[in-house]
Parts: sequence; structure tokens; C-alpha cells
Amino acid sequence: MALKLHGLAFSTCTARAATAIYEKGQQFELVPVNLTAGEHKQPGFLAKNPFGQIPVLEDGDLTLFESRAIATYVAEKYKDSGSDLIRHQNLKEAALVKVWSEVESQTFHPVISAIVYQFLIAPLFGQQTDQAVIDANLEKLKNILDVYESRLKSSKYLAGDFFSLADLNHCPYLFYFMRSPWTSVVNERPHVKAWWEDISSRPSFKKVAEGMTFGQK
Amino acid sequence: MALKLHGLAFSTCTARAATAIYEKGQQFELVPVNLTAGEHKQPGFLAKNPFGQIPVLEDGDLTLFESRAIATYVAEKYKDSGSDLIRHQNLKEAALVKVWSEVESQTFHPVISAIVYQFLIAPLFGQQTDQAVIDANLEKLKNILDVYESRLKSSKYLAGDFFSLADLNHCPYLFYFMRSPWTSVVNERPHVKAWWEDISSRPSFKKVAEGMTFGQK
Repeated sequence: MALKLHGLAFSTCTARAATAIYEKGQQFELVPVNLTAGEHKQPGFLAKNPFGQIPVLEDGDLTLFESRAIATYVAEKYKDSGSDLIRHQNLKEAALVKVWSEVESQTFHPVISAIVYQFLIAPLFGQQTDQAVIDANLEKLKNILDVYESRLKSSKYLAGDFFSLADLNHCPYLFYFMRSPWTSVVNERPHVKAWWEDISSRPSFKKVAEGMTFGQK
Repeated sequence: MALKLHGLAFSTCTARAATAIYEKGQQFELVPVNLTAGEHKQPGFLAKNPFGQIPVLEDGDLTLFESRAIATYVAEKYKDSGSDLIRHQNLKEAALVKVWSEVESQTFHPVISAIVYQFLIAPLFGQQTDQAVIDANLEKLKNILDVYESRLKSSKYLAGDFFSLADLNHCPYLFYFMRSPWTSVVNERPHVKAWWEDISSRPSFKKVAEGMTFGQK
């Protein structure tokens, strides 16, 4: 039975799940959710995800939400096909994938999502962009990317010399961030720049990025 | 070689890692980090965690940080001893552990940590408690716990009828929250209350909680 991904192609979290599915050489049916009409807050969708958020993955009778959990599930279910996103045969490498995946989730995500929200999403909802929020988070992002720069001097990817979920999980928000006026934060750090160019040019993410048109006229 | 956990017994994130270690029937050496003296921002500690945060786990030549990553690593390394925190023999149950672990990380944690910070930590640093932040996050917490209440009507624990990392990861912040004036948020939801009483009375967490004396005179 085909995987069903409920979400929207331009959504960062749908994109994260979709990229993982493509990395494993799998296909899915994208089932659009009409956020404008509030479909995600209706009983039918809430039965799939009681928090009313996209994406949701249906795999037969299993229903999952939270994009990072979906990506990890897909990486485990199809562990022997496509890229090994979780280094399942090496406990130490697998541990480092977890460490840097948590860095994305706990440290990188709150900062970059605040910036992307302010410059890309707030204006679409008729809200004023709060430059103070952007500035404060840009300073935090610089500090985070200084650590990444140092890390990426000693290994090609975040968890080691192998592409993994830890890298993949960064793609969707970095993609939108790289349309902002502040790309120098990435481009002035040569190892971060090379890493971003590498991970964003993988066929999986390039395919997903075609649908990431949020904020485009 | 014994596990070395660099951290502080009263710290929520150290407590998360320690609870997982105890659940697996393992012991560790707690190596205190002098935050007051800024030890976590010195080169020796930054070589272990470049973000300068506790806890850090050293297991032989492997150095890990991020408490949720440490807990998952411990659950995988010792998968056949103690409680099965990740349901490693059942792909579907394992997937639901991931889903509800991500709910803790992405949805529950930002809200409860904001409340705990304001009522417990800010005053210790001579900062004014911001009641507006507390009130806004209490409203969010009520909505989250409404979902938990509904979930815990149909299964004893968050991921199913088994205790897992998804539950464990909630313990440290809920413990401090339950010393706040707003415990009715938990106690008015009977299934959430029973769940909290259950998970907080496990021997692993009771042992850890003995050291969670933050804010006590």
C-alpha cells in the first residue's frame, strides 16, 4: 500500500518528511490539507493528529505525525534501501546522528523558524515584521553556525563523514532562509556554505524544493 | 568502563539522561560542572559539547550531548536490559514512541519550560517573574494536556500501553511544574494526573528526583 502524506508541498514540515521518503527511494501520495478552510482543525483531520498540524503520514493502518518522527520511522522501516539516514549498523555513528538531530530540533530550529516566520509568513497574514525578533535571532544563528563551521571542518556532515537525518532535517527552513536578505550568515562561513550547497542539491531535496513556493508571487 | 555523566543533579536535562540510565539498570558517575564559575564555557567542557550545555555523557571514547539523544542512545545500547524504552522489536510501537517523544520535544517542552523558567529560575537570577508569559503558556499547556487527557483515556501511556521514552522525557519539567501554584492544570485532568503519579513514582525517577532541589532553601 502506498504511503499517504497529508500536508502541503510548500510546508517546511511536509518537506522534511517528503525528503526522507525520497531518500529511501520510496514514493508517496500527497493528500492536500486545506489550511485556509481550517480542514486541519476539523474532526476528520484531528483523528489523525489531535494537535491539528501537518504533516501526517498514513502507512496502512499506522498513522503518524510530527515530521521528525515520520522521517525517523521511514529511515528505520526502509533501512536497507536508499541512503542510510540513521547509521543503523553502527551504534556510535547512530548516536551522533541523534545528537546532531537534537541540535537541529532544540537549538537551530527555534532560532531559524522565528526568522523565517517574521520575514516570510507574518507579512502574508497581514502582520508587521518584527525586526527586533529577526535581529536577536540572527545573532543566535551566527553563534550556532560558528559551532557548525568548526564541526564541518572536521567532518563532511554534522554527524560524521556521511549524510544523515541530522543534515536532512535542516533543509526545509534553511531553504526559505536562503531567500532572505541575510544569506551572508551562511555564505560567510565556507564550510557551512559548502555543506548547504551539498545537502540542498541532493536529488531528494531538489525534488521537494520544486514545491516550496511559499511567499512567491 | 563506567558511564560518566557531566551535569548537575538538579538540572532538568541531566535528570532526563539519568532517569534513562537507571531505567536500563545501569549506573553512572556524576561529574559536577560548576556553572557558577562558567566551567561549561571553558575549553575543556566545550571540547565535549561545543554549545556549552549540560549534560554530556562519556561512554569510553564516545562523547554525546543533548539529553534526549543521550536517553535514546542508552535505550538502544542496553535495549535488552531494564525497561524497553524504545519498543525495538515492534516497528509500529517504536514509531509511536517517536511521535510522542517529538510531541514532548516540539510542543510540550517549549511551553512548560517557559513557565518553569519564569516561576523558578528567573527569581534566582534576580529577574522579575513575567506573569504574562506564564499566563499565555498556561493556556497553551491546558490545550496540550486536553489532548493528553484524551490520549490517556485510550492508552495507559502516551505511545501505548507501555512506559517509554515518550513518557520519561516529560518527567523533569513536570516535576518542577508540580511545585508551582498551577498544579490544578494537571490535577483537574484525571487521566493526566494518574499518568503523572505513575511515571513519577517509578524507582528510576524517584531516585533522580531526590537530587532535584532547584529553588529549595
